[in-house]
Amino acid sequence: MAARRARNDTASNQANEPSSQVLKLGEDRPLRLDSGKTLTPFQIAYETYGTLNEARSNAILICHALTGDQYVASRNPVTGKPGWWELMVGPGRVVDTDRFFVICSNVVGGCLGSTGPASINPDTGRAYGLDLPVITIADMVRAQVMLIDHFGIDRLFSVIGGSMGGMQVLEWAASYPERVFTALPIAAGARHSAQNIAFHEVGRQAVMADPDWCGGRYIEEGRRPEKGLAVARMAAHITYLSETALHRKFGRNLQDRENLTFGFDADFQIESYLRHQGMTFVDRFDANSYLYMTRAMDYFDLATDRGGLLADAFANSPTRFCVVSFTSDWLFPTAESRMVVRALNAAGASVSFVEIETDRGHDAFLLDEPELFAAVRGFLDSAARARGLEPVL
Amino acid sequence: MAARRARNDTASNQANEPSSQVLKLGEDRPLRLDSGKTLTPFQIAYETYGTLNEARSNAILICHALTGDQYVASRNPVTGKPGWWELMVGPGRVVDTDRFFVICSNVVGGCLGSTGPASINPDTGRAYGLDLPVITIADMVRAQVMLIDHFGIDRLFSVIGGSMGGMQVLEWAASYPERVFTALPIAAGARHSAQNIAFHEVGRQAVMADPDWCGGRYIEEGRRPEKGLAVARMAAHITYLSETALHRKFGRNLQDRENLTFGFDADFQIESYLRHQGMTFVDRFDANSYLYMTRAMDYFDLATDRGGLLADAFANSPTRFCVVSFTSDWLFPTAESRMVVRALNAAGASVSFVEIETDRGHDAFLLDEPELFAAVRGFLDSAARARGLEPVL
Repeated sequence: MAARRARNDTASNQANEPSSQVLKLGEDRPLRLDSGKTLTPFQIAYETYGTLNEARSNAILICHALTGDQYVASRNPVTGKPGWWELMVGPGRVVDTDRFFVICSNVVGGCLGSTGPASINPDTGRAYGLDLPVITIADMVRAQVMLIDHFGIDRLFSVIGGSMGGMQVLEWAASYPERVFTALPIAAGARHSAQNIAFHEVGRQAVMADPDWCGGRYIEEGRRPEKGLAVARMAAHITYLSETALHRKFGRNLQDRENLTFGFDADFQIESYLRHQGMTFVDRFDANSYLYMTRAMDYFDLATDRGGLLADAFANSPTRFCVVSFTSDWLFPTAESRMVVRALNAAGASVSFVEIETDRGHDAFLLDEPELFAAVRGFLDSAARARGLEPVL
Repeated sequence: MAARRARNDTASNQANEPSSQVLKLGEDRPLRLDSGKTLTPFQIAYETYGTLNEARSNAILICHALTGDQYVASRNPVTGKPGWWELMVGPGRVVDTDRFFVICSNVVGGCLGSTGPASINPDTGRAYGLDLPVITIADMVRAQVMLIDHFGIDRLFSVIGGSMGGMQVLEWAASYPERVFTALPIAAGARHSAQNIAFHEVGRQAVMADPDWCGGRYIEEGRRPEKGLAVARMAAHITYLSETALHRKFGRNLQDRENLTFGFDADFQIESYLRHQGMTFVDRFDANSYLYMTRAMDYFDLATDRGGLLADAFANSPTRFCVVSFTSDWLFPTAESRMVVRALNAAGASVSFVEIETDRGHDAFLLDEPELFAAVRGFLDSAARARGLEPVL
């Protein structure tokens, strides 16, 4: 079994990588970065689910979002919580691990086992901090290609991801079209908008304003910019929801049902909800990684990177696309998905487009959205028949 | 001349109130607050423009927004910039100071001469800080009523304001209907939404996370939470614009036209624009005042304060209303204005409603929007005839 062989090839877990498999790439296999620098040595932490078939044709790569991780369908050892997309991925689920071999890796620049700013810089023996080169979406994908090569997979049956994960999907399809049979970018776009860059910049400034950030060297100082990172998360979290959802869920409901306190504690439920989001986030995420992840999204612009015409990014693409957006997503509005669809049409690619009616905003891609599941299931089933994958027994 | 007499009655300027008139209200005239507390002594800094007629029937009160001030149509002595609404208010302007007597006062809780958290608490001899009771929109209006009484004005010809100023307009009309001939709430609503409370909470947390905030006692510590306040302003500023306007103005344009820097400096123009907004704001605004102003908006809910039915707030209102919204305003979307209009209709009030097509977002009320000027001019002219105000000679 290829999957099992792969497991045995890789190094065992380290103390700060509680359960993932890790692919270590030595100085003979550096990661070329868009910045012109190289990252070496480096490593990729990943999880797999299901079994790679003999033809190595049933592999699906799941790409995670800004603060996601490789635990797409298994318990996250840091938070103790279920995998972040267990509604979508698992035995009998839409992305059926009884049928497909699912790979999910922590992106380079992340903080859950892949090389990131909290990793040790071999040149100094200290954590990289901001000495880690800036990582782009293309860099993340380039590392994923090395992981896929490691499994001996020539062509992925599918690359699937939402938000920043969707950006990686588009990058995969644009840069490695022959290696991607189907691509599912969900709640994403081919570039980050000015407003989205603006929100990210607020978050970065919040982190860097925290004196415990120490110019990015907080690890060796034994400090953590928790307050700044919490503020960044709070601001970002608002953009993941929708006004309608916030109104429905919280409205102007008070913590104490009767009375305003006439003070600055959390009077409204939305306030304590947001504070909770901020506080729990700092327990699971590295502040510098947050800077790197947001920067990667800001830098993403598939058209500019291809000379200005988005359609050129997909010229002669053999990949089948299914683009999904949500009506109430104001971080990646449907217009951004339509722009991708138009470019794919102009490039003559095979594309289906689904806009899903929901009031749950950007986060809808992670939630129980039956229409989303139906769309993805239908698309994958059809593609599996075309690819000649045997049906589930 | 009543206006001149009023000027002579008031105290002269203090060092930190560079040019405004100030009405000082002693312990015999305390300000009753919604919190149940009283503020005494306290003072209101204000500017006037034009001349109050003999009948005292041509007075217009302009209510300022969150970080506004009394310098609606004259140079702000702190920033050295023109008045914040000189496009709307001044000789020959829509709110014509050759015709109307215009009053604009700094709200209680503010930081430009009216009593606020930076003022000296007479009980301690130190700045109030968070010992100032929480101020509500109704409290601000109650103080304005005392200012209007001071001028001997029974009935204002109009109360006009945008955003938090529009909340004050609605509060005036609801609580003092006989004293308001016309009311123009612009880009406002009868309550603050969950999403708006959420953004305000992010801003407050950013301020309070700054160690230079010192639990609100930064003045006596000789410090200023500039970084936290700048982050708060940056987050808020995004909500004042629209995605379309940001895209048109900045898009993904780079500071250096050619190259990404692959770092965390401001690569994109939107980033340096936002940083500039944050940095200039801290020079003109007090951090604690920012907490108080945001709290006042969060607490505003005209319906709940009146037993739950918004229409009840305007029952038998003699006031003529003109409600204005902007299509791209997502802080106070048109739906919020429509809710006010429906309540006014249900209450049998006289109301006209104008939704102005613009892509400039919430800030449109401060900008050169010819449709806005035309609507306000037409409404005021018609009302002036009804009120028997003589035409401009």
